[in-house]
Amino acid sequence: MHGAVIYAPGDVRYEERPEPVILDPTDAIVRTVAACVCGSDLWRYRGIAPVPEPTPIGHEFCGVVTAVGDAVTTVKPGDFVVGGFNPSDNTCTVCRKGAHANCVNGDHYDGAQAEQIRIPQADGTLVATPTMPDDDLIPSLLTLSDVMCTGWHAAVSAGVGPGKSVAVVGDGAVGLCAVLASVQLGASMVIAMSRHADRQRIAREFGATHIVAERDEAGIAAIRELTDGIGADCVLECVGTEAARMQAIGAVRDGGNVGLVGVPHGDLPVNELFWRNVGIKGGPAHCRAYLPELMDAVLARSINPGLVFDLELPLAEVAEAYAAMDSRRAIKSLLRP
Amino acid sequence: MHGAVIYAPGDVRYEERPEPVILDPTDAIVRTVAACVCGSDLWRYRGIAPVPEPTPIGHEFCGVVTAVGDAVTTVKPGDFVVGGFNPSDNTCTVCRKGAHANCVNGDHYDGAQAEQIRIPQADGTLVATPTMPDDDLIPSLLTLSDVMCTGWHAAVSAGVGPGKSVAVVGDGAVGLCAVLASVQLGASMVIAMSRHADRQRIAREFGATHIVAERDEAGIAAIRELTDGIGADCVLECVGTEAARMQAIGAVRDGGNVGLVGVPHGDLPVNELFWRNVGIKGGPAHCRAYLPELMDAVLARSINPGLVFDLELPLAEVAEAYAAMDSRRAIKSLLRP
Repeated sequence: MHGAVIYAPGDVRYEERPEPVILDPTDAIVRTVAACVCGSDLWRYRGIAPVPEPTPIGHEFCGVVTAVGDAVTTVKPGDFVVGGFNPSDNTCTVCRKGAHANCVNGDHYDGAQAEQIRIPQADGTLVATPTMPDDDLIPSLLTLSDVMCTGWHAAVSAGVGPGKSVAVVGDGAVGLCAVLASVQLGASMVIAMSRHADRQRIAREFGATHIVAERDEAGIAAIRELTDGIGADCVLECVGTEAARMQAIGAVRDGGNVGLVGVPHGDLPVNELFWRNVGIKGGPAHCRAYLPELMDAVLARSINPGLVFDLELPLAEVAEAYAAMDSRRAIKSLLRP
Repeated sequence: MHGAVIYAPGDVRYEERPEPVILDPTDAIVRTVAACVCGSDLWRYRGIAPVPEPTPIGHEFCGVVTAVGDAVTTVKPGDFVVGGFNPSDNTCTVCRKGAHANCVNGDHYDGAQAEQIRIPQADGTLVATPTMPDDDLIPSLLTLSDVMCTGWHAAVSAGVGPGKSVAVVGDGAVGLCAVLASVQLGASMVIAMSRHADRQRIAREFGATHIVAERDEAGIAAIRELTDGIGADCVLECVGTEAARMQAIGAVRDGGNVGLVGVPHGDLPVNELFWRNVGIKGGPAHCRAYLPELMDAVLARSINPGLVFDLELPLAEVAEAYAAMDSRRAIKSLLRP
């Protein structure tokens, strides 16, 4: 079979790779129907994270199960499935608390930008649709493997709920999904921070009530102006840079909450957070906790997170999928084998 | 009139001071019925915070209103009142969000270890009892000016609620009140960390289900053993040292929350918090948000936070009240004029 392998920064190749096989009785093999490139894949592509050796890459996919290990009971060959990027057993003491990303038997996979992939902890990780989904739903189902769950996680971590004001820092695919999540969770005001007309348009389609194009101090001032001068109840930081985190802390009201899904770089201003009673919470998304509900919403066509894909390519052109996102010609690239 | 003045570390004197007068139309003058010494007063007493000049000290009191400014409408001379240590107007945009400690018209007072005190923002800060309370309720009412609200704030900040497991780091008056708060908020397991028999006994009276006497790694291990090996859903850090915060972060489960009311010193392990999905929130207590409900509970005799006082002295012996707390002969000293 074929799949993407990253060799070095800027060097992703589509090449022949060994067929995946069942290694553990809890494994499943999935034939990919669609896969995509994650913002975090770009860390290696851009040389921010190391690439010590050629490595299969990709952790967002949906597809059809072709084989399962002896211990797998909830999915079977022929099922259409979506899997969260952070495998969990869905039964341990931590999963039972809803913190699936921190499953005590948590696992990891990479190499989903391929025709097939082996998924560990299949029962806990994969969720099957009741029937084969319509083809036009594939992009939205694909987002449930990471970006939509991650945007949802930002909102949940910041306590977004009915009547809350929300500001979203970051207009990448995760930030846009965080806008959609906030609207779905009942926020009364959802402010998308974006300078790009195409991304603003998607934010509006997702239900953003306001767009703030300014950044830094001007961006903070614009958000305060929209929120009685005090800042938003909840701010969702969907970038991961220190500048974005400072933007988020500046835009949240005293006593409010910052939801964090961008991997943090740099320090937190602990004293400011304390004296302002600002909470901060986030991390990798508890995909499996959110997947069933979000899958139902996609299948019912009540949400359409697949709008974040603005480029679709054959899997064989995966190198271009990276290049387009790296140069910001695309928000997010979808790949089909 | 007379009151306490701190001159230098270890040097608190009871001396004649000017009678307080109404300065702003939102002021009230209160004749003190009881006052007490706060753990944070000890910072100056111990030389941790500076004492640049002789300063009236104390911010915890209850008493009877003797005069009010022209703008005050909710309390009147003769009312028995408790005031939160951080004055708030209870009407601004931030107060309306329940974040009274961060009131945009917030103010400050010191010098409550005195026969009288001027309280700014009286309408927003003071809460009157319906009638003159029984004398045996005075200690519990007095705790509502700081420690009980602060313990409650730790629990609220960490999301304590029905069915949660809670561990409390710190067995001072605030930590003990945090135990009581957690029980009142419906936690199913409340673990008090304490090595002192007298404090353990109060924690038990407040409803602690478990006591952990160990500290550091052994303390974390003991809490994990009580919580299916994963740590507590909520950990309340009621000390403010880096060691206590590390204890709290070690004792919380992945995906859980740390409530912080000890003023933070040192850095937060941002990356660990992120990858473990641990939330952190806290700061100065929103006293006015909590006072009415807690006052009702005290007057109904359903809570008895006044148990934290294990020393009662005449106000004139305020120096001994400090010395007893400084040398840990007393958990908390109550003073009566």
